[in-house]
Amino acid sequence: MKILEKKIKEEGQVLEPDILKVDSFLNHQIDVSLFQEIGQTFQKHFSDKKINKILTIEASGIGLAVICAQNFDNCKVVFVKKAASKITDDHAYTTTIHSFTKNTDYIARVSADYLNEDDHVLILDDFLANGEAILGMYDLCQQAHATVEGIGVVIAKGFQSGMTRIKQETGLDVYALEVIEGFEKGKVILRK
Amino acid sequence: MKILEKKIKEEGQVLEPDILKVDSFLNHQIDVSLFQEIGQTFQKHFSDKKINKILTIEASGIGLAVICAQNFDNCKVVFVKKAASKITDDHAYTTTIHSFTKNTDYIARVSADYLNEDDHVLILDDFLANGEAILGMYDLCQQAHATVEGIGVVIAKGFQSGMTRIKQETGLDVYALEVIEGFEKGKVILRK
Repeated sequence: MKILEKKIKEEGQVLEPDILKVDSFLNHQIDVSLFQEIGQTFQKHFSDKKINKILTIEASGIGLAVICAQNFDNCKVVFVKKAASKITDDHAYTTTIHSFTKNTDYIARVSADYLNEDDHVLILDDFLANGEAILGMYDLCQQAHATVEGIGVVIAKGFQSGMTRIKQETGLDVYALEVIEGFEKGKVILRK
Repeated sequence: MKILEKKIKEEGQVLEPDILKVDSFLNHQIDVSLFQEIGQTFQKHFSDKKINKILTIEASGIGLAVICAQNFDNCKVVFVKKAASKITDDHAYTTTIHSFTKNTDYIARVSADYLNEDDHVLILDDFLANGEAILGMYDLCQQAHATVEGIGVVIAKGFQSGMTRIKQETGLDVYALEVIEGFEKGKVILRK
């Protein structure tokens, strides 16, 4: 995706050997017009699927999911929650997800009221590295007997295990708008 | 707002003496078409202000902010983060916010790169009770010397202190789409 590639090259900062910071447009400040193009690109790719629900995980997936959902007919968004709160009931599916960034496990939770066997789900997230969050959401869909129609991410780290693991464990390809091949002298190398 | 009032009455659940659960459309599952109407309503109310940035706080404010920003010209969204992560730098403003729901304090943080003296900010959130989150965001704007043009929330608890505290501490009115007066026999009473 041309505009995304440009944004990554111009605004992305390589912080550590393998960390790309893109919080000027993706996950702290949000470039809404870019998100609109991203949403349309996902819709085009998954246009042959009957998708009635986009599942994502808080926090940075939410903006993406909501903008994208506007392009599908009668499509709602459900965001998986990372922490139990006082007003969440026990009528929920849960799974454990490991965060490599924070080096900790957390419980991801979705209410059984908002994910069920009638749902045809597109799983979306902003970033894919080891695939933990996506596989956690896939697990929640399996528990709810929902049909996963597709998986999309904005940026995938092609040199980490996520894309391969997801293919192996779900049989589904990940549709990534940009794939990072690696880093060279503080610059990001994107897959052609 | 008629459609919001209907949603609250039909789908809202009163869980404890003073907790309204609206996660079927506002803060777990998101009704995107409702959000579009909400976004237009905020835009109409603040149409005489030059707003270039919407500030909200993760997680449930994000969807709202992003949908709403589409109605303003060249308007970006910045969401305040609740936890320090490995890739957040120190070039940031922080403030402490008390969560009454979780009975705990947390640090709210926004990068100084994405909030500054050139910004004309609309602060948005899904819920207003004691005003802690809104006042925290107002404090971050003050630190950044940004101009707060307005404050909007979808649902305010009129019987709690938030609206009054915000008026006293900021001089600004809160534009709330619906105000809860109280609860009676497990039903929510909305302000006329």
